[in-house]
Amino acid sequence: MSLERVGEGMHALISRLYPICRSITGPGVRETLAIVREEIPLAIHEVPSGTRAFDWTVPQEWRIRDAYIEDAAGSRVVDFRRCNLHVVNYSRPTRARLTWSQLDQRLHSLPDRPDLIPYRTSYYAESWGFCLAHHQRQALAARGDGAEYEVVIDAELSDGFLTYGELLLAGESSDEVLFSCHVCHPSLANDNLSGVAVATQLARRLADRPRRYSYRFLFLPATIGALVWLSQHPASLPRIKHGLVLTLLGDGGPLTYKRSRRGDAEIDRIAAHVLTRSNMSQRLLDFEPFGYDERQYCSPGFNLPIGCLMRSLPGEYPEYHSSADNLELVRPEHLADSWQTCAAIVDVLERNRTYVSLNPQGEPQLGRRGLYGTLGGKAGRAELEAALLWVLNQADGRHSLLDIAERSGLSFDLIAKGADMLVEKDLIREQPQAS
Amino acid sequence: MSLERVGEGMHALISRLYPICRSITGPGVRETLAIVREEIPLAIHEVPSGTRAFDWTVPQEWRIRDAYIEDAAGSRVVDFRRCNLHVVNYSRPTRARLTWSQLDQRLHSLPDRPDLIPYRTSYYAESWGFCLAHHQRQALAARGDGAEYEVVIDAELSDGFLTYGELLLAGESSDEVLFSCHVCHPSLANDNLSGVAVATQLARRLADRPRRYSYRFLFLPATIGALVWLSQHPASLPRIKHGLVLTLLGDGGPLTYKRSRRGDAEIDRIAAHVLTRSNMSQRLLDFEPFGYDERQYCSPGFNLPIGCLMRSLPGEYPEYHSSADNLELVRPEHLADSWQTCAAIVDVLERNRTYVSLNPQGEPQLGRRGLYGTLGGKAGRAELEAALLWVLNQADGRHSLLDIAERSGLSFDLIAKGADMLVEKDLIREQPQAS
Amino acid sequence: MSLERVGEGMHALISRLYPICRSITGPGVRETLAIVREEIPLAIHEVPSGTRAFDWTVPQEWRIRDAYIEDAAGSRVVDFRRCNLHVVNYSRPTRARLTWSQLDQRLHSLPDRPDLIPYRTSYYAESWGFCLAHHQRQALAARGDGAEYEVVIDAELSDGFLTYGELLLAGESSDEVLFSCHVCHPSLANDNLSGVAVATQLARRLADRPRRYSYRFLFLPATIGALVWLSQHPASLPRIKHGLVLTLLGDGGPLTYKRSRRGDAEIDRIAAHVLTRSNMSQRLLDFEPFGYDERQYCSPGFNLPIGCLMRSLPGEYPEYHSSADNLELVRPEHLADSWQTCAAIVDVLERNRTYVSLNPQGEPQLGRRGLYGTLGGKAGRAELEAALLWVLNQADGRHSLLDIAERSGLSFDLIAKGADMLVEKDLIREQPQAS
Repeated sequence: MSLERVGEGMHALISRLYPICRSITGPGVRETLAIVREEIPLAIHEVPSGTRAFDWTVPQEWRIRDAYIEDAAGSRVVDFRRCNLHVVNYSRPTRARLTWSQLDQRLHSLPDRPDLIPYRTSYYAESWGFCLAHHQRQALAARGDGAEYEVVIDAELSDGFLTYGELLLAGESSDEVLFSCHVCHPSLANDNLSGVAVATQLARRLADRPRRYSYRFLFLPATIGALVWLSQHPASLPRIKHGLVLTLLGDGGPLTYKRSRRGDAEIDRIAAHVLTRSNMSQRLLDFEPFGYDERQYCSPGFNLPIGCLMRSLPGEYPEYHSSADNLELVRPEHLADSWQTCAAIVDVLERNRTYVSLNPQGEPQLGRRGLYGTLGGKAGRAELEAALLWVLNQADGRHSLLDIAERSGLSFDLIAKGADMLVEKDLIREQPQAS
Repeated sequence: MSLERVGEGMHALISRLYPICRSITGPGVRETLAIVREEIPLAIHEVPSGTRAFDWTVPQEWRIRDAYIEDAAGSRVVDFRRCNLHVVNYSRPTRARLTWSQLDQRLHSLPDRPDLIPYRTSYYAESWGFCLAHHQRQALAARGDGAEYEVVIDAELSDGFLTYGELLLAGESSDEVLFSCHVCHPSLANDNLSGVAVATQLARRLADRPRRYSYRFLFLPATIGALVWLSQHPASLPRIKHGLVLTLLGDGGPLTYKRSRRGDAEIDRIAAHVLTRSNMSQRLLDFEPFGYDERQYCSPGFNLPIGCLMRSLPGEYPEYHSSADNLELVRPEHLADSWQTCAAIVDVLERNRTYVSLNPQGEPQLGRRGLYGTLGGKAGRAELEAALLWVLNQADGRHSLLDIAERSGLSFDLIAKGADMLVEKDLIREQPQAS
Repeated sequence: MSLERVGEGMHALISRLYPICRSITGPGVRETLAIVREEIPLAIHEVPSGTRAFDWTVPQEWRIRDAYIEDAAGSRVVDFRRCNLHVVNYSRPTRARLTWSQLDQRLHSLPDRPDLIPYRTSYYAESWGFCLAHHQRQALAARGDGAEYEVVIDAELSDGFLTYGELLLAGESSDEVLFSCHVCHPSLANDNLSGVAVATQLARRLADRPRRYSYRFLFLPATIGALVWLSQHPASLPRIKHGLVLTLLGDGGPLTYKRSRRGDAEIDRIAAHVLTRSNMSQRLLDFEPFGYDERQYCSPGFNLPIGCLMRSLPGEYPEYHSSADNLELVRPEHLADSWQTCAAIVDVLERNRTYVSLNPQGEPQLGRRGLYGTLGGKAGRAELEAALLWVLNQADGRHSLLDIAERSGLSFDLIAKGADMLVEKDLIREQPQAS
């Protein structure tokens, strides 16, 4: 499948998921996961409200049917059915008649981007509210403070479940690579759905090929979902050797890797190698404890080697957390680039091994093994011959192929190709890892 | 007390001390310490001549009453009573009639700064001499080689004592912070008195507040005084965890921190943090074995974590070691800046602790503890919330608050404020130090 | 002897060696070593064909008497006797009558440097060929494809010996410094003979002076010679503490040091100190597993602390591996600079010791030992006094004189001179090395 087709496929999945009103609990997440399950064999887990997850508790399930603000003339001036961002996410049920000056205190808008509807949430604190374009808010204000409105949030908060999706692709080793994305934002395309689409496509690609590592994909409500998973899988944690949080992967920003808390984990070095050698614009950022679920994975009690792959940063692009984070913002070509980068990182992970030379004293005679030009004396040297010599020189059981690529300045791919040739000629063998 | 008043107070102290003819031993040091004792409860120690201090011996006490050069007409052309720099400090007693050509060999002047009287000493070698402005020397030379002069140095060198002052402000811990300044220069305002004034003011400030560390202030004759103290307090040395030599703190040069021999001691890192985050011009210099008593504290047998805080370097400013290092060179506002920097360094020392999270697995729920905005989704984030998250993330018992400030790029003050809030909510607790 | 005379002497030696047709085995190496033995008491070793050296085997001996291409008119259009580069080195014996189109496949020329005869070899693979200027090749091609030529390579390949030269200059310690150069290239002046000349001159200089280290000089056929030596001297290897491969030292390129595989060996740091403090243009390069016999010495099974000193790099200068690498390319003044640099590196190696202070607590009183100006107070300080204080401050048994030179920014020579003065005054003593 061409890269272009892959990008279009991911955009199509996002388009299907975009209208759904997701929240941290409730039917929106279930619908979302059901659609993802059409693509990959996701296991879907339901965790009861009230379940403890470290310092947190799974909240009640939120089900919203309708929400609106109706003016005295019976016209719905703000209507959840037109855009699910209009209601503050997780608002408690409400039915009231309010004057404009009372209602105004419950409204959220963006004065500096007056055409956009903001995205707001009210998790873990009983509240309610509406979001609307600032232009509209000003028009309503012009009707006078005394104007009256019927306000309805036809929602339900009750004991139920937190829902998440999980896929484990077992590999040769039980050591795991974790990919995690969030599924709790309503109609926001870049912020949650781009990560869902790239993770889904990556799982599809990995499903039908041999795998050195086992790969675990998590589709979770942010924060509480990650904490629930972490609290319920203590035995899995030591197996997680590498990981990436996938988010904000569909916009036109530069590919951005945010390092794990460790800063020099293998995933950090691999992501840096892949990004800096690509010809796409890119950035490498140090860890900081804000952002997405890397906050949880990299908390001091876990300190997992998990970084975050993004394009724009949260808050960096003007459409962030607003109605403009939509299907036009997210482009197939950006999704394709992001997916290709993930695939390249996985490729290095799979191939990054450590070798010992079986002929460590001096160089082996490559010429008689057909690995070297036999007519000596020519200036210049093929890059592959350089790769062979670098691998042989560094094959002391203490340098991985990534180490050798970094020291030599050659691409990981060339170094790995050289190592394969040397293995075939019995000149090096893999060093069992301490783990 | 306003910073301006603090600066004026320090300048007033310097003005009282300036006329005294100090040397490495003798009444000048005693008079100086007696005046300092009016401000802080200094203990004054007298160490007999002949006492051994490692490779050195306490020299005889020098008492000078008068010194002059009188011409044939009975006129005092050079007079110690007008400026105590006129006599080479520690000159042996002398009374002689000399021709100009004989006398000229005993004179010191500065051809490139012809109006200034230089400061010269003759410690540890029996000698004598006079210092004068080069212009005056030329005028005397014009009187002819045969002109005769009566030369008198009415001084006494005899067994007596070396005098130094000491103040220990006990704190919660017996671990000590050492501040050391020299008191052996005659009428030089920046070179010795500025350090005396800043140390005195710092001791006053620390005297009336709770202290985590114990603070030791030493007012010593340079070199021999430090060696005497070190040789007589072997049991104290292991308690010295941090320290600063204070000198040259009243001129208009940039604040300058010279690192300890260790280079990465906590005091080195704290001074760097405080200086680089101030908006004053500043410099950080590596250790070198010249300068003031850091030479002794940082000799290989002690290797104490003691740096040196200065403004201009010795020899760097044109007034150095001359009659122009006077009350006009030293300004109240520079003294105040220097003192404030010392106080800021002490503040970080006092507050720099290491914590462990009591909720290390994932983030604790800050919202329900009132530590976090409850309405999610807004772009941007208060710096204090960032500080809370950084402290929580790094509270693994291996990162001090200074480490966290450096990694996060936030100010130490903000990080420490965040830590205090988290302690209050039982989210972190201090990690006992290995020491 | 003046540096100029030293350079001329090395050029004269190169001029004698230049006409000889060397190869990896055979009489050319023997003749070369016999001439070098006129200068230094070289031991000459003969290793039989078929001897194993790790993955390699000593090949047969190659003896060439004559080689030419004769046209139908009986004229020698290509003649080994005019230039020994005309025959591919180590070509098997050949006698044939060929048309131009057959012959042309056996020819090597340089289209982009059409006046030069290239240097080509055919080691470890039975083959033969001729090298010639591309202009001449075009002229011959113009005679037509059907033109016939008599081709003769009057050579012999038969069991014999590999020959190498060795000189050990024993020192106080059995720890060794290895200098290695190659002697297997025919008429190439910079590529092999410059290294031979510099090594010979260095051995002459070291022969008649006291030596802390033992010095071993190897004059070897590249690759196979080094491997033979390494395989036959396993007991010597642990004694090799430092070393340099000497090559390409006569051209006008900048002095270039290529670090050992270790990268931070003492020889690496010394070469960096010497080169960066010289006023010659210079370069420091990281190790890579191409080049000369550092490839073998730095293979993972040996990992010896051996770097490579060069001027231009192989392939970097246009005359490389061609008839233009001749007696005009190699200049006496460049040879002299290179030799002087080697001598300076040896000088630092000999003098780089580690000391402990016998008076570590505070500074010793230098004044009464005549090591310090007795009249205090002067701004400025002699560099030698600075060196004394630096050595005293760092004499803790953990810092070598090179460490001190690097930290202080003073020259190694000044630091070593200071150390000698302090040893004489019993203020420091040498720290026995762990080795």
